[in-house]
Amino acid sequence: VAAGDVDGIDALMEPLHPADIADLLEQVSDGERESWLALWSRGIDGEVLSELDWGLREEVIALLPGDVLADAVRELDSDDVVDLVEDLEDDQIEAILEVLEPADRVAVEQALAYPEETAGRLMQREVVHAPEHWTVGEMIDYLRAHAGQLPEQFYHVILTDPRMKPTGYVTLGRLLSSARQTPLQDIVEDSFRVIPATQHEDDVAYAFNQYHLISAPVVDEDGRLVGVITIDDAMIVLDEGAEEEILKLAGVGEESSLSDRVLETTKQRFPWLFVNLITAILASLVIAQFEDAIAQIVALAVLMPIVASMGGNAGTQSLTVAVRALATRDLTSSNLMRVVLREGVVGLINGAAFALVMGIVGLVWFGSPALGGVIAAAMVINLFVAGLAGILIPVVLDRLNIDPALASGAFVTTVTDVVGFFAFLGLAVVFLL
Amino acid sequence: VAAGDVDGIDALMEPLHPADIADLLEQVSDGERESWLALWSRGIDGEVLSELDWGLREEVIALLPGDVLADAVRELDSDDVVDLVEDLEDDQIEAILEVLEPADRVAVEQALAYPEETAGRLMQREVVHAPEHWTVGEMIDYLRAHAGQLPEQFYHVILTDPRMKPTGYVTLGRLLSSARQTPLQDIVEDSFRVIPATQHEDDVAYAFNQYHLISAPVVDEDGRLVGVITIDDAMIVLDEGAEEEILKLAGVGEESSLSDRVLETTKQRFPWLFVNLITAILASLVIAQFEDAIAQIVALAVLMPIVASMGGNAGTQSLTVAVRALATRDLTSSNLMRVVLREGVVGLINGAAFALVMGIVGLVWFGSPALGGVIAAAMVINLFVAGLAGILIPVVLDRLNIDPALASGAFVTTVTDVVGFFAFLGLAVVFLL
Repeated sequence: VAAGDVDGIDALMEPLHPADIADLLEQVSDGERESWLALWSRGIDGEVLSELDWGLREEVIALLPGDVLADAVRELDSDDVVDLVEDLEDDQIEAILEVLEPADRVAVEQALAYPEETAGRLMQREVVHAPEHWTVGEMIDYLRAHAGQLPEQFYHVILTDPRMKPTGYVTLGRLLSSARQTPLQDIVEDSFRVIPATQHEDDVAYAFNQYHLISAPVVDEDGRLVGVITIDDAMIVLDEGAEEEILKLAGVGEESSLSDRVLETTKQRFPWLFVNLITAILASLVIAQFEDAIAQIVALAVLMPIVASMGGNAGTQSLTVAVRALATRDLTSSNLMRVVLREGVVGLINGAAFALVMGIVGLVWFGSPALGGVIAAAMVINLFVAGLAGILIPVVLDRLNIDPALASGAFVTTVTDVVGFFAFLGLAVVFLL
Repeated sequence: VAAGDVDGIDALMEPLHPADIADLLEQVSDGERESWLALWSRGIDGEVLSELDWGLREEVIALLPGDVLADAVRELDSDDVVDLVEDLEDDQIEAILEVLEPADRVAVEQALAYPEETAGRLMQREVVHAPEHWTVGEMIDYLRAHAGQLPEQFYHVILTDPRMKPTGYVTLGRLLSSARQTPLQDIVEDSFRVIPATQHEDDVAYAFNQYHLISAPVVDEDGRLVGVITIDDAMIVLDEGAEEEILKLAGVGEESSLSDRVLETTKQRFPWLFVNLITAILASLVIAQFEDAIAQIVALAVLMPIVASMGGNAGTQSLTVAVRALATRDLTSSNLMRVVLREGVVGLINGAAFALVMGIVGLVWFGSPALGGVIAAAMVINLFVAGLAGILIPVVLDRLNIDPALASGAFVTTVTDVVGFFAFLGLAVVFLL
């Protein structure tokens, strides 16, 4: 790149898959990326743009010459164009829509009219469908006659009634292995699900995952076929969902990525650290109530972080299991009571086990059976409370329509810190002073 | 269920998808499940078994009458049988293998001969392939003639040379839309990837995700076609991978599930809590070095958890981003230095911001500018170290082939606790006493 060897770059990049080219662009530094694009913009096709992290897309699109961008965008299916433009600035969207064929432009604009994160945004409008009275032979003749206009990938033919309502679908495998005179009606699949265009993409992804769908027809509010969602779209949603959940649980902005700038990253992480500061100060206020006790027995200051830390970890275990189960819809009102009970009992048992360990540590280290007893009792209390808080807080947040992955951590930590310090120092005041 | 109304249950369960029936069985209590199965075992088909959590499968299989189990297993594709039996006890595997047709039995046994978590375990052996010199017409005639023996779902026809090496594939859509006399060679897809049977399933899932594959041929060590992996198998691996990562980051056993028993759950969580106890005791040992300082200035005991807690959270943020990036292969040696630098700078900036806040809190709360200065300095140091530890520890663990999702948390917390307490209390000794 440094030598400006365009043919060399060509030879190097030619055999790469668009997804790998996108990864390469994400991993080089900003300066390298710019000189790369200046030299080799003709290699950036639509698929590479689709594969880029959305933070970088805007930047790369701005750097591309107009004709390269136009070619890149024109070759994409309508759902990929929608995915490409939906996070861009308005003037960039306008510039991209302008270069599309009128029909594609209308398709993209209609998709953008659906709310964000709905099936309408995910679907592609290129659908292979047929009247329900056709035979296999008629279908094959139709497909041969329209070979040029078919979507790049399709897995089913959707049967529609005269009002364009989908009534069933036929897999291409059945179509290929049936005699020409077979009516399509005779080889439709048993199970058949339609997706409303306004359904949330998380529900779409759940249906694909739960029922192992490969593609599913999308219908408008009148039940008419308007598009199709294929598994690759659903997989992206699932993948992003899991990614977001991990990042939210850790208090990192849900859309953070390695190619973000320092300032962006700092801003994403600041709010969660700030919430944690409030939590920590609350815990300190609890400790401040016991300043006299600590001044008299400094060992309390030495041991108190252990109780809080164990509670925090046990709470994180329970809350992660709860957040996961809520996300996968395995935690419902029918098993909630049993799960809460289980977390409470697990907390008690582990609490008792660590109470024993810490009682001995307290006794051996500080030579005080009473101190050992106090830390043991505080451990049982805090691990029990941690188990219950870890399950109940996410469930309550979920009922209140607050994202449990995002908010549970702060609440649970507050509870375990406050309870941990209060139980340990409070018991110490009662039994040791 | 309580009334033993078999027809009522039948009517209720009939329209449900196997995945939903499995979810139902997972959510009821143990006793309910047993009476349910006693009444309604005929409804449990192979797909329901496949969908069950593996912890429950063993139990449900043990409860099923032999003939129901035999029917259930016989209807499954070979890859699903492999998935079903691989975690069972040997005698249960034997019982299931016995009821299979001899050909299926051989297929399952061959798959089980591949190491766990490899492509050989994931693949199905039912493959649609054709000699590379065939035409579309010959292919369609073949499929029609063998309609009964085709796999339930297939998306490609794989072309093979006379030695059974795959040379390319044709999508069913191209096959359907091409004239009968077209040679298959003319309509093969450009991109074509084969998967070695011994490849790890994580690498398989990565390839499906990265290159948007729908199905891919699997080859043995001689490059001969032995099976095919379809996207539904890859999706399960991806889904489990994300699930495991979340659970490991939280210190919960990677295969925990809501239907686990109390004792199992307790045992899964104990080890991580134990590691955390060691970490916490290490931190306490640091505090113990400063007992004299704390006895003189109790405010130190009140404020010290804040520094440690902020460091722990900042470290968790960095480490989660690092573990994610390692899992998605976005963190490579080419961008490592830039990412480390970024985390360090982000730590410094957020450290400075919170130093300011805490300096003021320390000053206002305890009326001591020196104490404010000490906590501010400790905050900058700890957040900087947290940023670096959060990225470097996962990377080093990964290089040492230790799973970073599992082990990073304990190491990072130890570093931020020890550094946090040592910096704050050490600076206090130097500047306040």
